[in-house]
Amino acid sequence: MKIEYVNPFISSTIHTFETMLHTNLTAGKPQLKTEPFLTHDISGIIGLSGDAKGSICISYPKIVALKAVSRFLGSEVKIVGPDVSDAIGEITNIIAGNAKKDLGGLNVSISLPNVVIGRAHKITCPANIQGIVVPFASEIGHIAIEIHLKTV
Amino acid sequence: MKIEYVNPFISSTIHTFETMLHTNLTAGKPQLKTEPFLTHDISGIIGLSGDAKGSICISYPKIVALKAVSRFLGSEVKIVGPDVSDAIGEITNIIAGNAKKDLGGLNVSISLPNVVIGRAHKITCPANIQGIVVPFASEIGHIAIEIHLKTV
Repeated sequence: MKIEYVNPFISSTIHTFETMLHTNLTAGKPQLKTEPFLTHDISGIIGLSGDAKGSICISYPKIVALKAVSRFLGSEVKIVGPDVSDAIGEITNIIAGNAKKDLGGLNVSISLPNVVIGRAHKITCPANIQGIVVPFASEIGHIAIEIHLKTV
Repeated sequence: MKIEYVNPFISSTIHTFETMLHTNLTAGKPQLKTEPFLTHDISGIIGLSGDAKGSICISYPKIVALKAVSRFLGSEVKIVGPDVSDAIGEITNIIAGNAKKDLGGLNVSISLPNVVIGRAHKITCPANIQGIVVPFASEIGHIAIEIHLKTV
């Protein structure tokens, strides 16, 4: 996977959190995804296909997801329920939708988001596709995005 | 979501398990996905986009995933590791790839599969897309597929 395909997802994540959640994210260094994998409590996943195939996952500890969704909805959410899964899915959709416009001329379409809820889950992708993980820090806590992309 | 879009996924799941895993599946009645959601241990997820957008998830209890992968690989697998996640992803990819050819003239492309590993996880999709769940029984245990599809 070319590293230049990672930057649009970083920019879109930062921009989306800034404009929709009023939260400043600081991106850490992109890393190759290696085992043992990170574990997460809540993840938004969306598939990419077209000139490139793959997926992005945006993953949160539970407490960070609740804070992120509270900011996104403008009212405090304390329990992981349909409000949270819908909002996490919508944030995933916005990030992927903005990023796909900047993939260096690649024409990519996105699927609908799925949201995974489960304490300490792991997400994998085919072993022949090198995943890239980008950690982000913010005042509400840490999140991570994982990008898997294979040009066709 | 039109019910006729469910049948290709049912047929493809049965065909794939029969030919690649030498396992006969019996499909139960398709159901609207309602809360409380089913929980799973291992799920393969793949995104769909094009004339229709959405996703399919094929979910297993851990013991059933191990038996399914053992049959797929032709050797017994006892631990959930990279072999299992790769095989579950590949099975998901085959099922989606075969089903998309039979979606009544809809031109749909598939993303790469993600595999979620985590005890008792739930998977959600946007609330405005009615998901359909199809349970399957077999000699190795029960699995379920969830189909979310929205024509564009």
